[in-house]
Amino acid sequence: MEQQEKNYVEIFEQKLEGKDYDSLKNMLEAMHPADIAETLKDIAPIDSLKVFLLISDPQISGLVLSHLGIMEAGVERDILEHLTEEKIATIISAIESDEAADILNIFPEKKRAAILSLAESEVQVEVEELLQYPEDTAGGLMDHEYLAVNQGKTIKETINIVRQEILPQEARIYSYINIFVVDDKGYLVGYLALRDLLIKHYKKTLKEVMIKEIISVQPEIDQEEVSRIFIKYDLVTLPVVDKENRMVGRITVDDVIDVIQEEATEDIYRMVGTDDEELWQKSVFKVAGIRLPWLLTTLMGTLCSALILMSFRLTLDKVLMLVFFIPAITAMGGNIGIQSSTIVVRGLATGHIELNEVWSVLFRELRVGLIMGVACGSIVGVVAYIVGNNPLLGLIVGSSMFFAILVAAMMGCLTPITFKKLNIDPAISSGPFVTTANDITGLLIYLGLATSLIKYLI
Amino acid sequence: MEQQEKNYVEIFEQKLEGKDYDSLKNMLEAMHPADIAETLKDIAPIDSLKVFLLISDPQISGLVLSHLGIMEAGVERDILEHLTEEKIATIISAIESDEAADILNIFPEKKRAAILSLAESEVQVEVEELLQYPEDTAGGLMDHEYLAVNQGKTIKETINIVRQEILPQEARIYSYINIFVVDDKGYLVGYLALRDLLIKHYKKTLKEVMIKEIISVQPEIDQEEVSRIFIKYDLVTLPVVDKENRMVGRITVDDVIDVIQEEATEDIYRMVGTDDEELWQKSVFKVAGIRLPWLLTTLMGTLCSALILMSFRLTLDKVLMLVFFIPAITAMGGNIGIQSSTIVVRGLATGHIELNEVWSVLFRELRVGLIMGVACGSIVGVVAYIVGNNPLLGLIVGSSMFFAILVAAMMGCLTPITFKKLNIDPAISSGPFVTTANDITGLLIYLGLATSLIKYLI
Repeated sequence: MEQQEKNYVEIFEQKLEGKDYDSLKNMLEAMHPADIAETLKDIAPIDSLKVFLLISDPQISGLVLSHLGIMEAGVERDILEHLTEEKIATIISAIESDEAADILNIFPEKKRAAILSLAESEVQVEVEELLQYPEDTAGGLMDHEYLAVNQGKTIKETINIVRQEILPQEARIYSYINIFVVDDKGYLVGYLALRDLLIKHYKKTLKEVMIKEIISVQPEIDQEEVSRIFIKYDLVTLPVVDKENRMVGRITVDDVIDVIQEEATEDIYRMVGTDDEELWQKSVFKVAGIRLPWLLTTLMGTLCSALILMSFRLTLDKVLMLVFFIPAITAMGGNIGIQSSTIVVRGLATGHIELNEVWSVLFRELRVGLIMGVACGSIVGVVAYIVGNNPLLGLIVGSSMFFAILVAAMMGCLTPITFKKLNIDPAISSGPFVTTANDITGLLIYLGLATSLIKYLI
Repeated sequence: MEQQEKNYVEIFEQKLEGKDYDSLKNMLEAMHPADIAETLKDIAPIDSLKVFLLISDPQISGLVLSHLGIMEAGVERDILEHLTEEKIATIISAIESDEAADILNIFPEKKRAAILSLAESEVQVEVEELLQYPEDTAGGLMDHEYLAVNQGKTIKETINIVRQEILPQEARIYSYINIFVVDDKGYLVGYLALRDLLIKHYKKTLKEVMIKEIISVQPEIDQEEVSRIFIKYDLVTLPVVDKENRMVGRITVDDVIDVIQEEATEDIYRMVGTDDEELWQKSVFKVAGIRLPWLLTTLMGTLCSALILMSFRLTLDKVLMLVFFIPAITAMGGNIGIQSSTIVVRGLATGHIELNEVWSVLFRELRVGLIMGVACGSIVGVVAYIVGNNPLLGLIVGSSMFFAILVAAMMGCLTPITFKKLNIDPAISSGPFVTTANDITGLLIYLGLATSLIKYLI
């Protein structure tokens, strides 16, 4: 696939240079919207816009935009800002309602309303409803392109409904996996696989043949919870219902996959003290602005470390050799702390660890820490003994590392759990907080021990 | 959902205590296999086995096992080790072939063959073929429960095939989304949405109505590439073909979601110097064994730092104040390095960064590093100036941090890219290598600068 993409970029550039627009237009018609999007991402911004305007089918234009939005919002924005409101209205009328809402979400309220007023009235109603929900909830993920049929209809009548429905290209796949069954009030009462329409008797009503055990969510549910439900029950679509069990939308697995990728990226970025927001930032100043708060936190931590070292200056002055092992103590504590906290953060995110299992995880990390503390502590202790030609120095360095590792394992576990209980994203605790805290405790243990034994050490 | 689960655990335990097996059995029949699995995970191992044996339908037993396998292999293993070979053979005959292969993969070769010889002959052939492929390739993900129909068949004939096919419960959903069309030699020539069977004329052949543009992969393709294709094209199923384009299997989106979660977890674990293998380890010694190689690498790095400090002992002895800022220099360099390397590692994994975009990423990280270096360097420089009452100390500390940050940003970028080019998983470079390398370069910059200016410093 890689090879293919590269070719597209070159071909696009050649055709643009040669002003060979007709043949480029033909080429676009044969391409998958995802491939068009990927190529637009890799060519010059001015060219992306030119190529985009050559796409004649508004549905394809819309799909290209939504693929771009998932890959890299920058290009999507660049293009959208150069389109007329009429053009955008035509595009959003041709695609799934959730994707239309995502595109509109880029604009400020006023422009959004202006565009919507130009769209088809059905689209207006649907998209406006979707825009009410925060993007990271079930409501923000759902669309309106599902088939909900009254339970009184027969199989034959339902087949006719399926035959008449015209839906945007991508919505189709999901719409015809499950048909949702509702009662007269619109309450969700069951579902039916499309295959059942082929198998069941023509005259049976949906009520007679539907499956009544149906998993659904309410629109307020967080998208992380939605993805957990999809993973747990191996779903392809999930109906969204209001408090009274009236069907209001449907979530499809393709959007959930994007959520899973995004949430993992967000966690990974936050663990090292930044945010996946920086993916959308072109300005390096804004990127630095996202990272700086966490770096400054770390910087404050290291200045605390400096303060601790200063307060132990008499000890250090007497036994300069103690200085040599400072990086060893802090780095090992930091590493173990990050391991434990990362395991807890990821475990909480995937549901592998639940809050009530905290103690067993802590206990496990402590036992692992014990083993690693003994291993690393003995090695560094022996090295210190040999280098300093002083057994007590070896003992101090080795046992400090042992304790620093134990404390780090414990803090690495407890910090994300505490954050989670305080309803703060545990991912942000993993990097800056845990490493800084472990640097400080490591130094305190090491220099405290050395100072208390200083008279034997000199 | 959370609440519900907890109740199941309690109810299960009560019924087991009261030896109320019949009512437990009835309860199991009404439960979703995913819920059964989640409950088995949370009760005592001896109880999980008891409950598992109460499940009478082998298909449900199989689904419970495969849900357990995804959640926590420990429980799956415990149960499987207590089942007879006959029982396992019955179970794997009742579920999708890829899940049967996953279950068999737990056993050593000999036992695997023994179990397979007891299974249905069709299952034997299919599962043996799947077992040939490594678990992390398209071949390891695919199953055989797809519908491939000859292009000469009419719509009416195809409907009859659909009516006759009996497939395991979960396979059904995916089997009836797309029907794959093959020619007389079994070559994949197109596909058809199930809905088309309802819409197209009865007498048309598949060849006349099928969609010919079809995305497929070969069985050797890595699972990460498979997941990228699913994400890019919003797929629900993907056909797997051999070199001659003969259809050999099909991958479904539920398995791909598991891959996406697993790959993210694996990357996250490797970034901090461990491996997601530890999720399956009950023994803390084995967990320590997985982490120790990386920790020992870091330990060696810190001993290099000790060596560097020793070689600068004259400088440190003369200006002890230099020691105070060692943690600041190393910690900030380490943090920035991990940020850059994490962004590159994740970018490479999600396809957000491609290898040919290396220079633009490096350039961006350097510019971000420049800003952060100026900010952090000036703060720490001013602090050092005030604390030491020595402007030159401030200058040395500040500019060392600035350069350490720049170098760290660069190394953080280049290390994972180099690993990737050497075909080593870049994730393992992020933690141990980058931090250790940055500690060393940070110290060299700092103490080298201080030593060269030592006569002005005293």
